[in-house]
Amino acid sequence: MNIQRPFSIVGVGKYLPKTIVSSEEIEKEVGLPEGYIYKNVGVKSRHIATEETLTYMAKEALTSALEDAQISIIEIDCLIGASASFDYIIPSRSSLIKNAFGDEVNEVDFPCIDISTVCTSFITAIDYASLLLSNNKYKNIAIVSSEISSKNLNPNDKETYGLFGDGAAAIIISKTTHNVGLIEYQSKTFSSGAKHTIIEGGGHINHPSDVAYSTELYAFKMYGKKLLKEAKYTLPKFLLRFFEPLNIDLKNINLIVPHQASKLGLRMLTVINKGNSQNIVDQLENHGNCIAASIPIALVSSIEDKKLKEGDTCFLIGTAAGITISGLLFKYSKK
Amino acid sequence: MNIQRPFSIVGVGKYLPKTIVSSEEIEKEVGLPEGYIYKNVGVKSRHIATEETLTYMAKEALTSALEDAQISIIEIDCLIGASASFDYIIPSRSSLIKNAFGDEVNEVDFPCIDISTVCTSFITAIDYASLLLSNNKYKNIAIVSSEISSKNLNPNDKETYGLFGDGAAAIIISKTTHNVGLIEYQSKTFSSGAKHTIIEGGGHINHPSDVAYSTELYAFKMYGKKLLKEAKYTLPKFLLRFFEPLNIDLKNINLIVPHQASKLGLRMLTVINKGNSQNIVDQLENHGNCIAASIPIALVSSIEDKKLKEGDTCFLIGTAAGITISGLLFKYSKK
Repeated sequence: MNIQRPFSIVGVGKYLPKTIVSSEEIEKEVGLPEGYIYKNVGVKSRHIATEETLTYMAKEALTSALEDAQISIIEIDCLIGASASFDYIIPSRSSLIKNAFGDEVNEVDFPCIDISTVCTSFITAIDYASLLLSNNKYKNIAIVSSEISSKNLNPNDKETYGLFGDGAAAIIISKTTHNVGLIEYQSKTFSSGAKHTIIEGGGHINHPSDVAYSTELYAFKMYGKKLLKEAKYTLPKFLLRFFEPLNIDLKNINLIVPHQASKLGLRMLTVINKGNSQNIVDQLENHGNCIAASIPIALVSSIEDKKLKEGDTCFLIGTAAGITISGLLFKYSKK
Repeated sequence: MNIQRPFSIVGVGKYLPKTIVSSEEIEKEVGLPEGYIYKNVGVKSRHIATEETLTYMAKEALTSALEDAQISIIEIDCLIGASASFDYIIPSRSSLIKNAFGDEVNEVDFPCIDISTVCTSFITAIDYASLLLSNNKYKNIAIVSSEISSKNLNPNDKETYGLFGDGAAAIIISKTTHNVGLIEYQSKTFSSGAKHTIIEGGGHINHPSDVAYSTELYAFKMYGKKLLKEAKYTLPKFLLRFFEPLNIDLKNINLIVPHQASKLGLRMLTVINKGNSQNIVDQLENHGNCIAASIPIALVSSIEDKKLKEGDTCFLIGTAAGITISGLLFKYSKK
């Protein structure tokens, strides 16, 4: 397999909110039978930001990644914010993260950029970072995904209320002289399903000056059945087109890190992987769906737990609101 | 001047809302003396979206750009949404734009990606697009900026209420065999000023479930004096570092397209340009500050009006919330 654009991941970090909420607690809160959520949604517990902000979690995750990389924030050449939720509409997530480092970064002027394909933003950000690195201007790029969904959930929506969790993860992606990095990246948007995943309130349409706040209006709505129907058709096709020219089979990839979208979504991937779930990272049970932070949290955990090792191939894959499918295959190295 | 990454701009288009509001009308509405806004803010009239959505304006602008390029939407390989405002929090702006083309695009699966550095998002998007083109996978990339600020303004804020306008613009940026395209791109974020431009409500902090809507909370706040003070120090330094290695003087650039941030911001650029305002595009009077759409509206108008001609050099420059300064110098060609 040829390396299209070399990069190494020299540091990784994550931050999970201190408060853990069990599915039992949620079942009691909304009057569901005990065991309903785990059985139907696949989640036992999730971290929920009660005191943390998105920027705080992002800073903590990035600080860990910098420590792991043994570099200082002032050695970063570009910071990419890759999330769907935000502390403020303006300014950008990424400039707020830099700002959170305070005086330490006042003398450095590296650019802060937000990029988003919603749940697969982290995949899009890695491809973008690898392009920026190939340009020879930057040496170290920080990518941070930080998500809080807990305030945009509707207790009456059984499909989503028990599914989501909060969290953040960061990586430092760097230039390398080794033969590692990006093998292939592809992203496709099937826009007929653009509104199958939506938050209806809070933008120009249903602006808060026109329509009063309601839990339902600001709830993350996911038409799960429509999405699964679409994914059943498009995902196998996407994977075929992705892997066939590379002459490699999905089951031979060392580690598959999928978006932790839903129990059925993860099961579909196992089916496509010919029933083999061994090389698929599944953290849904203890984290829920953390929007764009799901993939990096799973990736960072896998590196920390040495499930992803030097020279291993790793495939990041996810479906996102849009509907977008993004996949990125890379050869991992810390060096 | 060397071309770093070739590209041509094969089509351009813009959409301006049908409703035009004069500064006189605003002065009457908020009880300001006649002539106050033009004298102090520099704006005589602006387009205001009364019936249009962001997605509608974006689709209209992109449709014009496609017509200008004489290509169909199905020949697009990637769509980049480069704005700060949005119709919905989720899904992405870009997937909604693709969705607006309806059945026409159902059979094509080109990816939709949002990128943002707030007011300079369009500059960041051109650099990103040129990197994507250099990768030889894409031939035609659409970049669309569409902004509506009018619902996020506070009538009691004299500094901003008369300043902003709404609008959209789009370009088709394509692979070319000619020696034209990107000469230099730089972006810097000075994050100590991250909160000098802010919308305080609507995100996780001051979430609508915690804090009730008020015009003030959701108003675009700009600490103009702080921003100008910062810009006076950072902008000349940025331009020096940008142009010195290129051995070219700002006044010799054929066309400078600045973000239409404010009257004083545009004046500062003229001062840096040694008093020469001839090659600086100034549309503030009739458009106001259209956030990220300002630069592309000004660029598209300049191309339509033949102020920017084949082979001309063009410098896009702007300051944005963050505080980010972005600059991009390119050699223009439609071919």
